[in-house]
Amino acid sequence: MPRFDRDHAFRHRITVRYGETDQMGVAYHANYLLYFEDARTAFMRAEGMAYGDVERTGVGLPVRRVDLRYRAPAFFEDELDVFVWIERSRAASITFGYEIQRARRGDGAPEDHPTLATAAIELACMDLVTRRPRVFPPELSEALGLPQDRAGR
Amino acid sequence: MPRFDRDHAFRHRITVRYGETDQMGVAYHANYLLYFEDARTAFMRAEGMAYGDVERTGVGLPVRRVDLRYRAPAFFEDELDVFVWIERSRAASITFGYEIQRARRGDGAPEDHPTLATAAIELACMDLVTRRPRVFPPELSEALGLPQDRAGR
Amino acid sequence: MPRFDRDHAFRHRITVRYGETDQMGVAYHANYLLYFEDARTAFMRAEGMAYGDVERTGVGLPVRRVDLRYRAPAFFEDELDVFVWIERSRAASITFGYEIQRARRGDGAPEDHPTLATAAIELACMDLVTRRPRVFPPELSEALGLPQDRAGR
Amino acid sequence: MPRFDRDHAFRHRITVRYGETDQMGVAYHANYLLYFEDARTAFMRAEGMAYGDVERTGVGLPVRRVDLRYRAPAFFEDELDVFVWIERSRAASITFGYEIQRARRGDGAPEDHPTLATAAIELACMDLVTRRPRVFPPELSEALGLPQDRAGR
Repeated sequence: MPRFDRDHAFRHRITVRYGETDQMGVAYHANYLLYFEDARTAFMRAEGMAYGDVERTGVGLPVRRVDLRYRAPAFFEDELDVFVWIERSRAASITFGYEIQRARRGDGAPEDHPTLATAAIELACMDLVTRRPRVFPPELSEALGLPQDRAGR
Repeated sequence: MPRFDRDHAFRHRITVRYGETDQMGVAYHANYLLYFEDARTAFMRAEGMAYGDVERTGVGLPVRRVDLRYRAPAFFEDELDVFVWIERSRAASITFGYEIQRARRGDGAPEDHPTLATAAIELACMDLVTRRPRVFPPELSEALGLPQDRAGR
Repeated sequence: MPRFDRDHAFRHRITVRYGETDQMGVAYHANYLLYFEDARTAFMRAEGMAYGDVERTGVGLPVRRVDLRYRAPAFFEDELDVFVWIERSRAASITFGYEIQRARRGDGAPEDHPTLATAAIELACMDLVTRRPRVFPPELSEALGLPQDRAGR
Repeated sequence: MPRFDRDHAFRHRITVRYGETDQMGVAYHANYLLYFEDARTAFMRAEGMAYGDVERTGVGLPVRRVDLRYRAPAFFEDELDVFVWIERSRAASITFGYEIQRARRGDGAPEDHPTLATAAIELACMDLVTRRPRVFPPELSEALGLPQDRAGR
């Protein structure tokens, strides 16, 4: 299923771990990057192209840019829905969009599922041996439904 | 259900995240402590006494001792079963036993579910305001099925 | 000393830890947020207003936005210079600019000190009890040399 | 200089980062493993045998066992002295001893340098290609001053 916008996003559920909190009593801000990545790799597995398999063919997708807004805090034992979709793709880079909503509060209080964070994260496509940029392998483009001719996007 | 040995352990399933690996290509050893904790807090929630609720009553369970053996590595996208049970309890401390088995390899290879790690982790019972040791609250002892008179253990 | 641009930045030296690498063999991207924060808190201490002291007065500075570009990878045992300065300030928020340069390669190879990452990170000023926005305490504005009347910035 | 006991330990100074705290308001317990490792790799560099160089020869030192006692908490911005020494060595494994003392409190209060944690961590010597145990390379034994004939230890 093509997932090119928020309405068709892949949903990944996580629970905030104790060790992910900080002394402000909230999920530490750097951990959101792990949540996004966890959702992104689950998404790729679900599409039949696990990121581990990508790396085993000698191709890596290092993060090149992060644009991340924190809107409301997440707390220990909160269940979060991390939504991920493909926002843009080029010949040698891809940008995923993300939104985190709280699905259930850890303290059991009623909840109207607020948006906690939104982000766009750009990954480069890289040859793991030479560490140089390269175009996406066709299997990966196909699995993610990327347009054959990405030049115009 | 009383969970006082490996045969009656609580099982918690996790998947190794990319950010949890290190440059040796395996799950970084410190992250096992997060896996154990994640299993322990899921266990407590399942027993009706979420650790977050314990802290909201002013009681904390800081880690006092870790005895941990690594037997075989875990890899990115491996699905792991973290087993946890109560190995020992005293008036103001509790020791959880742990075993991690691989349930499914991330690379899809066949698998005979090896034991990757075993551990015993002792937690103290502490008043969060005074930061001094205290006995377990009765609700917590009851939820975990701890013996009423723990003096003799 | 006022530190309002890259040329007058505060410099903080760190060394990449083994546990901060991932299986791509580089410093994991989320750890850059810890490096930036480490530099920012060292900067505040050097200016006579430690962030721990700020929190002890009931004021916190949670991260509200991250804009981060990764330009070249950092490796285990690399020594990095994290430069930090105040890019913008308003009544209830402050944006720090960052640049990471490699000072020395962990493998001892010669080096021309490339820029590995640049970032802008916006922090809100928050009352830790009510978790609501508030203006900066005057001691903090003074320590960081923020303009008295920030309304126009 | 031979470093085979606490009195001749190597000293490594670290400062607790904000992101290393948890919602109990202390340095999160898993991070002590990063502190120990940071001290161990600094020790090896100081002895002229950086761990990165060891890995570049195809040899790794994965952690096999951790025995760790937490005695008192560490707080944000505390400066800690991590002491490390070689407690035992065999043909294909080595055990480091550790002690963490607080050198300076982050809040500036007077301090009598308490011991916060002690540990013994056993590392195996492993061939990174085959992932099988192997004896220490002679250069490594020499750099660390390990006995030539370790059979009897």
